[in-house]
Amino acid sequence: MASQTIAPSYNPFTPTLRTQGRKIAILGFGTVGSALARILKERNTEHFELTHIFNREINRKRVSWTGASIQWTDSFEDVLESDVEVVIELVGGIQPAKEWVVAALTAGKSVVTANKQLIARFGVELSELARQHGCHLLFGASLAGGVPAIDALQQGLAGDELQSVHGILNGTCNYILSKMEEGLPFPTALAEAQRLGFAEADPRDDLAGYDARAKLVILARTALRASLVLEDIPCSDISTVRPIDFVYARELGCTIRQVAEAGLSGSNIVARIEPVLVPFTSLLAAVRGCDNVVIASGKFGGTTALSGAGAGGCPTAVAVLSDLITIANGGPANTNQCLQEVTLAKDYIGPYYLRLVVNDRPGIIAHVTSILAKFEINVDAVLQKPGYSKEQLPFAVTVEACSTETLESALAEIARADFLVEEPLKLRIVGR
Amino acid sequence: MASQTIAPSYNPFTPTLRTQGRKIAILGFGTVGSALARILKERNTEHFELTHIFNREINRKRVSWTGASIQWTDSFEDVLESDVEVVIELVGGIQPAKEWVVAALTAGKSVVTANKQLIARFGVELSELARQHGCHLLFGASLAGGVPAIDALQQGLAGDELQSVHGILNGTCNYILSKMEEGLPFPTALAEAQRLGFAEADPRDDLAGYDARAKLVILARTALRASLVLEDIPCSDISTVRPIDFVYARELGCTIRQVAEAGLSGSNIVARIEPVLVPFTSLLAAVRGCDNVVIASGKFGGTTALSGAGAGGCPTAVAVLSDLITIANGGPANTNQCLQEVTLAKDYIGPYYLRLVVNDRPGIIAHVTSILAKFEINVDAVLQKPGYSKEQLPFAVTVEACSTETLESALAEIARADFLVEEPLKLRIVGR
Repeated sequence: MASQTIAPSYNPFTPTLRTQGRKIAILGFGTVGSALARILKERNTEHFELTHIFNREINRKRVSWTGASIQWTDSFEDVLESDVEVVIELVGGIQPAKEWVVAALTAGKSVVTANKQLIARFGVELSELARQHGCHLLFGASLAGGVPAIDALQQGLAGDELQSVHGILNGTCNYILSKMEEGLPFPTALAEAQRLGFAEADPRDDLAGYDARAKLVILARTALRASLVLEDIPCSDISTVRPIDFVYARELGCTIRQVAEAGLSGSNIVARIEPVLVPFTSLLAAVRGCDNVVIASGKFGGTTALSGAGAGGCPTAVAVLSDLITIANGGPANTNQCLQEVTLAKDYIGPYYLRLVVNDRPGIIAHVTSILAKFEINVDAVLQKPGYSKEQLPFAVTVEACSTETLESALAEIARADFLVEEPLKLRIVGR
Repeated sequence: MASQTIAPSYNPFTPTLRTQGRKIAILGFGTVGSALARILKERNTEHFELTHIFNREINRKRVSWTGASIQWTDSFEDVLESDVEVVIELVGGIQPAKEWVVAALTAGKSVVTANKQLIARFGVELSELARQHGCHLLFGASLAGGVPAIDALQQGLAGDELQSVHGILNGTCNYILSKMEEGLPFPTALAEAQRLGFAEADPRDDLAGYDARAKLVILARTALRASLVLEDIPCSDISTVRPIDFVYARELGCTIRQVAEAGLSGSNIVARIEPVLVPFTSLLAAVRGCDNVVIASGKFGGTTALSGAGAGGCPTAVAVLSDLITIANGGPANTNQCLQEVTLAKDYIGPYYLRLVVNDRPGIIAHVTSILAKFEINVDAVLQKPGYSKEQLPFAVTVEACSTETLESALAEIARADFLVEEPLKLRIVGR
């Protein structure tokens, strides 16, 4: 008659049924790894004992503040053959990280990882491997830094039937776009992000949306039980956005953000990562700098948003430690089941912002709008600021909701005009 | 060597180690209770079997869509003596809800509740009772409707050391203040909220902050491990806020929200519920209508925000169902331990907005500002819009950060002036 589970007065640092600390190893002693070691040291960590730190060329990583009892090693075998119970994978990338995670799980060691590429590509099979070996694979740190999105989608919103998830998943792009909103040109904003450590020396994966794409695959799996193929998801680069686009966006009550989105409609799914116009009054606009936001919409509970520090050593280390505590408390593993086969939608309907840079002469607006009219696309507004050179004149047109395929056909015809100085930019307008 | 816990490929509707559905009873078949019954019916609920619905005067509640197998009863003994494993308490209020929760827990039945007053006042002792009887007491639905705040604070952010929590916890007040932001006077906004079912016929507990206060006690316990005494927390009523305050707030780049806040500093705690000025660029301003937001700040992970539907049958029912799934999966009970004895701070420092309504004559601003100067309070701005009657002229003064006690002494002296038509209003300015 009684519930079978024992529910002690809950303390995240008092794992059930254990008196000794769980032995843990960190693979990869970079920003997140050292932040984690510091937090474990600073908080009351008697329930976790950090016994191994693994890194290539370990001697250049060695520090004294972690205490003398830690084994520093550049041999993964040392970790695998030890009595470590949880391996924390902070190496990143597919190989050799995957090989090590497989070896750890096969040896019955639970794994906590922040590796978005690994989970996006191999999360389903790795979770199955964990299940077979009676251990955990947790990846709350693989997206949105310290924002507990995976946990919330999987447990706090478990009672709902989630239908879409979208958000800002890349702090680098959000920092750059926030700075462009303040008036900086793209190269200056990027350089500032690099100087502050918010962008990689080679930022192409962030700018192109490939970083956010891996996170979207994980989100779609967790929230929607939908299996997306990474390479199939369309991405648009943010580096095509100019300061003038923020000027015109402002006239429309909007700013610009890189938004990742996955929305189910039956067994069809819309999924994409692209810069879009978002109203200033939206949560997406309120997320500035390196912050991330994850917004889920459910059939019953409406829309729920989670936002916070999207990256950085300490926030990501907090996410790792939260997963460690979940393991210590015997909590559930993260969802990696894909119950639903989905078809990626190729076309969708929505309003758009178009920006053209032209070598000005009479009749350009008439030409552009007549092509749009031919494709039955309704123009909403034409925006043209004075003060630009006639040889490189930017102007914008917003159009009412139309099919993307139709719009692309119209743009292909517009692109043939000889007055165009560069390829037209099209940005979706959301949330109006 | 291996982790002891079994982590199956996780499915919230596939509770571990069980093949039969858990029998559950709903106490209180109002908005939330009937929404829950509908969601249980609509979703795949083979793992939960709703067997009893209890309500006073049960016959007026009886519906046919729930199916024939349900026992409708107005006797709590029927539930207590049944083989129901989880009792869902949606009755509200202290008595008899407390008596029933105690009886259920004592009989080894887990309890899921949305009852903020009960948990705020008796959560610690009820959790201890649950622990003694080896069952769960979960209360994720007791605040912020469908926003999974309790879960996130307790599990997703478990790795952090949270230092403060604040937010918008009362949808009624937020609806009214959002409408006043759009220009409606207070009585009209309140009447509209009542017409739409967002405010009670007697809205005093919401307006005065007493509803948010109970939620803040639960948040402080969950996030900060701090024990607050409900009646000790200062509350200011929102009904003193006028449309003119939104006009002046807008000039300062702000709007007005009812904000509940608890912040630790060593063993001192600041806790209060009051209308405050918040910048338009803040998350607090972005929360409109009946939505709620909970914002937690940690030592390591920075600031994390959760927002969404703060009330309503379906969102609250989703929160209840998420708790049911946690029980089915053997997840941890909610935190009700108070590890830290705290002292409520009586004084604090911050910038303020002051609004006075005066019977105009020369020298009023000089009089007011000279009293402020005497108390060494620095004036930041004086705002006075034209177009009001000289007999009831509203003007505002903003002051730089000062001690509340000092400001109150100054206001007491200002209040003695014969030109004042009503008591001065003071609102804190946050987040600038």
